[in-house]
Amino acid sequence: MTGNDISGTPPGDLRGRLLRADALHAPAMGEVEALDGALFDIDGTGALAAVLRAGTDAHAQALAGAGGRLVTASSGTVLLPGLVDLHIHAPQYPQLGTALDLPLEEWLMEYTFPLEARYADTAFAGRVYGQLVRDLLSVGTTTAVYFATIHDAATCLLADICLSAGQRAFVGRVAMDHPDTCPPDYRDDSPAAALAGTRAVIAHIRDHPDNVDARVRPMICPRFVPACTDALLAGLGALAAETGVPVTTHVSESDWEHDHVYDRHAMSDTESLDRFGLLRPGSVLAHGCLLSESDMRRMAERRTGVAHCPLSNAYFAGAVFPLRKALGLGLGVGLGSDISGGPAATVWETARQALVAARMLESGTDPELPPDARSACPEARIDAATAFWLATAGGADVLGLPVGRLAPGQRFDALLIDPAARLGGLAAWGLSGPEAPVRRLERLLYGTARANIAAVWVDGARVAGAS
Amino acid sequence: MTGNDISGTPPGDLRGRLLRADALHAPAMGEVEALDGALFDIDGTGALAAVLRAGTDAHAQALAGAGGRLVTASSGTVLLPGLVDLHIHAPQYPQLGTALDLPLEEWLMEYTFPLEARYADTAFAGRVYGQLVRDLLSVGTTTAVYFATIHDAATCLLADICLSAGQRAFVGRVAMDHPDTCPPDYRDDSPAAALAGTRAVIAHIRDHPDNVDARVRPMICPRFVPACTDALLAGLGALAAETGVPVTTHVSESDWEHDHVYDRHAMSDTESLDRFGLLRPGSVLAHGCLLSESDMRRMAERRTGVAHCPLSNAYFAGAVFPLRKALGLGLGVGLGSDISGGPAATVWETARQALVAARMLESGTDPELPPDARSACPEARIDAATAFWLATAGGADVLGLPVGRLAPGQRFDALLIDPAARLGGLAAWGLSGPEAPVRRLERLLYGTARANIAAVWVDGARVAGAS
Repeated sequence: MTGNDISGTPPGDLRGRLLRADALHAPAMGEVEALDGALFDIDGTGALAAVLRAGTDAHAQALAGAGGRLVTASSGTVLLPGLVDLHIHAPQYPQLGTALDLPLEEWLMEYTFPLEARYADTAFAGRVYGQLVRDLLSVGTTTAVYFATIHDAATCLLADICLSAGQRAFVGRVAMDHPDTCPPDYRDDSPAAALAGTRAVIAHIRDHPDNVDARVRPMICPRFVPACTDALLAGLGALAAETGVPVTTHVSESDWEHDHVYDRHAMSDTESLDRFGLLRPGSVLAHGCLLSESDMRRMAERRTGVAHCPLSNAYFAGAVFPLRKALGLGLGVGLGSDISGGPAATVWETARQALVAARMLESGTDPELPPDARSACPEARIDAATAFWLATAGGADVLGLPVGRLAPGQRFDALLIDPAARLGGLAAWGLSGPEAPVRRLERLLYGTARANIAAVWVDGARVAGAS
Repeated sequence: MTGNDISGTPPGDLRGRLLRADALHAPAMGEVEALDGALFDIDGTGALAAVLRAGTDAHAQALAGAGGRLVTASSGTVLLPGLVDLHIHAPQYPQLGTALDLPLEEWLMEYTFPLEARYADTAFAGRVYGQLVRDLLSVGTTTAVYFATIHDAATCLLADICLSAGQRAFVGRVAMDHPDTCPPDYRDDSPAAALAGTRAVIAHIRDHPDNVDARVRPMICPRFVPACTDALLAGLGALAAETGVPVTTHVSESDWEHDHVYDRHAMSDTESLDRFGLLRPGSVLAHGCLLSESDMRRMAERRTGVAHCPLSNAYFAGAVFPLRKALGLGLGVGLGSDISGGPAATVWETARQALVAARMLESGTDPELPPDARSACPEARIDAATAFWLATAGGADVLGLPVGRLAPGQRFDALLIDPAARLGGLAAWGLSGPEAPVRRLERLLYGTARANIAAVWVDGARVAGAS
């Protein structure tokens, strides 16, 4: 092939280059598009200026005139859009995969709040956050929505690390001040203190000299209604209106949390957040397992989406988020690993569990019941194309970002998968003949391991990869 | 450290050596034992002659007298027993991760039987089986129970490949002759033909010149009751009694399959198999989601165990195997990946899903129901220690093999995990302080990737590993 072969040691930078590759993406729910041998014209800013399909005149002309701009992905590799993780508790990374044995409210007090309190130590924060951002980029998470902690300095440091590592991210300084639900050594002293800290972090991120393209953005981050006083919730809503900063928090995750809000505010979690002005365009509410149909309609009207976290929901929610119902009502949905409520750090495992959880919601679980009584929600299942769409374009649409698709006008956030990687999980790939695009996407969804991710780009710049 | 350091390039062979390592295992259900700095005395045959704990006189004396016999695992690595996969359809490997969109009975006809029919081509079989056995060893599956196909030559070849690769395995020549449920181009011509083929494969494996230690053993393998005539089932039961060869098949997997047997034999799947003499010591029945309590008691009496396949059950069973109930009744249980009904080839992902499925059985799935009505089976959950026990000692106990534990008298089937491996999944490991053994095991269970498996031994001989 002509041009540079990016197997082995891919170039660091595709900005201004013309990439020839076999690609797959899911531009719409349940829809897979294969772009074999297509040309991806990446401009100097890292935007995808054009996608030229093989066999077209435009493709032939671009190829003929490419000269030194051409970069050819090595044979057998597959280009995919980068993954979007809508819900990550960055400070919880040190306990990933452990301590899943308590109910949510006890898990917070016993394990999680004491760990998060340690981020008063900025050196500890730098060590954890540096490792986390590197690891997430290496598994293909090019866009991340982070909850940090109540510590301003450590939260600003997380944003700085995302900027220097090249990850597209939203960073939220956690606000939590309720004396009944937050421990004395890990809560904001007052609503004013939480608001001041939130303002300071928003300013730090917006004014950062290296953040000219706003690749890293702030989010307003009330932990969840139970952890916040009404004064704080009202203040954060006003701050969101004043600054235009989107919001991320938890909603209707578990029966305990859902009932807590009903008992306190005599309305649903969603209605309460809306009353405080916390449902805003581009906002992300995690879980939503117990959302009512009217809650879902309300969120869709406010252009606030859901971070579906099927793995953590199995441990803490006690129910499965009714994904198909939500999508049918026009609610925006993407995927969240929910580190560390979810024991896996990758959107890959989250997407696999989204498929499994939807099956188990449809069939039910109890073998003692007859099938018709066991079956909970007919037609709840999703296919692999929808799971991959949730992991990419679906999540990007919730955030209102031009990523998640390999299409003109999108930022070039992408992964190059090498199915033949020695330590990967796609060995069976080579045993099959030519397959339909949806079959290829299924294999990648189930089998891709970190070792298969040869290169990762954000805005056209190489940020990670096994090769 | 003294002796050879086995990081980087581990020695091929630990037979006759004294290995010093930090180890973890689950010798009994829900029980974790840490063996930090212990000495593992491996005899010339690959048996574990002694395990000497650090700090004991025996440890000090053995260390002093070890001389050149000592091999020291590099600092930070963790020794684990090898994993046992009780249910693998070897010929289905080429479709791993795809084609999960149809009910079981349609999936067989549309995708699976046509693929299995291709194993009349021994060259194709050799290519697939060689790749599969190498891949399974590299992810730590040191013991495997394989369904092959109805082809004698290809089934013998699978056994030969296991022998040459060094994997401990049970290999079954599939018997299926029912004209109503098996396609004309993929079924045994008669019960006699199936029995003759089964006899031939049993003889090939037992008489193989390289199989002096019976590391590879035959199994009698009726596909499942729906695919077999009564004459074939009776013949296979008689053959099992005559030869003492254990049986592997499917039982009460889905409503369709369970009802099929009731309609045909007016009794449960388990009762029908028992009537034909197919419940025998060391036998393995896959799935068992719909087993009644009396079915479970019957299997326990016959010392026939279950291969719990939680990942494939989410796609094909329509219910969750009541694991805790089965264990409480004394039924032997291990884990099965169920390649390719399960889309993951590793016991690691199977064990993770066993944890998740047990949680979802306990909580139920339907958010429209109140918690008490939603909850299916109180106290169905298992902990990580039990999941790891199922993946090792639990599965070994079903088969009656002296593996799955790091204890005197066991065969030395083991893995060396390197949490710091560059392309692995255990980066968070290093971010935590010293942790309880069960916490370390949880992290390994959730995070271990192929790249973290530095070395794999069967009978003390190195058979795979990333290093």
